[in-house]
Amino acid sequence: MYSFETNIRVRYAETDQMGYVYYGNYAAYYEVARVESLRHLGLSYRDLEESGIIMPVMENCTKYLIPARYDELLKVKVSIKKKPGIKILFCYEIFNEEGNLINTGETKLAFIDKSTARPCRIPEVMKNVLYPYFD
Amino acid sequence: MYSFETNIRVRYAETDQMGYVYYGNYAAYYEVARVESLRHLGLSYRDLEESGIIMPVMENCTKYLIPARYDELLKVKVSIKKKPGIKILFCYEIFNEEGNLINTGETKLAFIDKSTARPCRIPEVMKNVLYPYFD
Amino acid sequence: MYSFETNIRVRYAETDQMGYVYYGNYAAYYEVARVESLRHLGLSYRDLEESGIIMPVMENCTKYLIPARYDELLKVKVSIKKKPGIKILFCYEIFNEEGNLINTGETKLAFIDKSTARPCRIPEVMKNVLYPYFD
Amino acid sequence: MYSFETNIRVRYAETDQMGYVYYGNYAAYYEVARVESLRHLGLSYRDLEESGIIMPVMENCTKYLIPARYDELLKVKVSIKKKPGIKILFCYEIFNEEGNLINTGETKLAFIDKSTARPCRIPEVMKNVLYPYFD
Repeated sequence: MYSFETNIRVRYAETDQMGYVYYGNYAAYYEVARVESLRHLGLSYRDLEESGIIMPVMENCTKYLIPARYDELLKVKVSIKKKPGIKILFCYEIFNEEGNLINTGETKLAFIDKSTARPCRIPEVMKNVLYPYFD
Repeated sequence: MYSFETNIRVRYAETDQMGYVYYGNYAAYYEVARVESLRHLGLSYRDLEESGIIMPVMENCTKYLIPARYDELLKVKVSIKKKPGIKILFCYEIFNEEGNLINTGETKLAFIDKSTARPCRIPEVMKNVLYPYFD
Repeated sequence: MYSFETNIRVRYAETDQMGYVYYGNYAAYYEVARVESLRHLGLSYRDLEESGIIMPVMENCTKYLIPARYDELLKVKVSIKKKPGIKILFCYEIFNEEGNLINTGETKLAFIDKSTARPCRIPEVMKNVLYPYFD
Repeated sequence: MYSFETNIRVRYAETDQMGYVYYGNYAAYYEVARVESLRHLGLSYRDLEESGIIMPVMENCTKYLIPARYDELLKVKVSIKKKPGIKILFCYEIFNEEGNLINTGETKLAFIDKSTARPCRIPEVMKNVLYPYFD
């Protein structure tokens, strides 16, 4: 298992008239957490795309436990719990400034070869840094 | 069961550099479909909020089958399959211009009394128009 | 001069905790108005991009006179007041349901040849339908 | 004059199918820069709102010189060049990782008393920390 934590400050743009973060905006928080968790391992998603592999989202599920509010510094914990193969599953837990768990989610992504538009296996560069966490 | 269909044109703002609709933006499509399905029954979500009831999203799950692309006129079919009580569940199927099913999802919302910030039962006005579909 | 009007319903996603449409979201309303004004003339911006011309925004200015609010059906009037050449300028006036002018803006776009990434003149297909309005 | 710099990483959510940051998303970058520039002075915009003053945007102008791209770590320089009174003007310069100036903008905001919905003068707390920069 591989876990990583990153902090995200809620922007005014992300709130709605309930005074909460709009439910669709957590997807971008998840994206930031995924990308930063890979960067921490020396993996750049930008480089991956430039090498010809894209990772579109296949499934996304979110439970909204407590609303996130403007200007809160959220802690987003992202985990990869299963060894990725042709898919990769990211799990998230978001905590507010009081340390309360406010949101949980899961996102399943595929690896797609841009040149053929077909699914492919996890790239070697990602395998090399991730697989040691699943021995 | 109550079903309703609405059309949504994909905006440039909603695409990402993959050339697909960003996965977080389907939440807004779902919102539009929910609100229009209620309006079709004579229910205004705006009025509901002004009367003191808000409906925050508790859970949202999405499967991305085929990417939606810029300028496509999507057909969003929204259904309420179970009689709502203290929660209401909306199910979605999105079709592209070729008629392919490209996205499915489910959203669970609560009814919250703004003055107490506590869950409440479905408002009478909504019950009156929705319950006949579940006899 | 060429003018066109289109209606846009404010989404919950577009509001912020002030209860107003977030100031950055008018850019998408302008985009919808531009694209629909061209479609009305038989021009598809999607087709234009597929033919190898993109139209990035060079400048955008907006005056926020009265806030737009959730669920309002806005009327967006878009005008091209000057004959376009290597740039095209769109002007906007947005009216709320009471008919009040709530927002004005201007957007300058360039024509860029995707293959060379260099500016080019207005495409013939657009010239043919727009120039008659400036005789 | 008061100036401040902050860094913002471009999210995938913020790109569009041109592969650029969508032109409407710079408004959120400006917002982050404004808020962080005030926080650096010990001012919390969240606290200001809670004290009953909101600062809606009255005008926003942006020049897009060079596109921002996915994953770039942008440097946003924000300046207040004129002593604020009943309005406050923020100026922005955004630089990409190569140090090129890619975007400039200006945003004029008002001070509004929430209880009366009427314009008011700059709050004392803000005056106290900002005015020394304009002596």
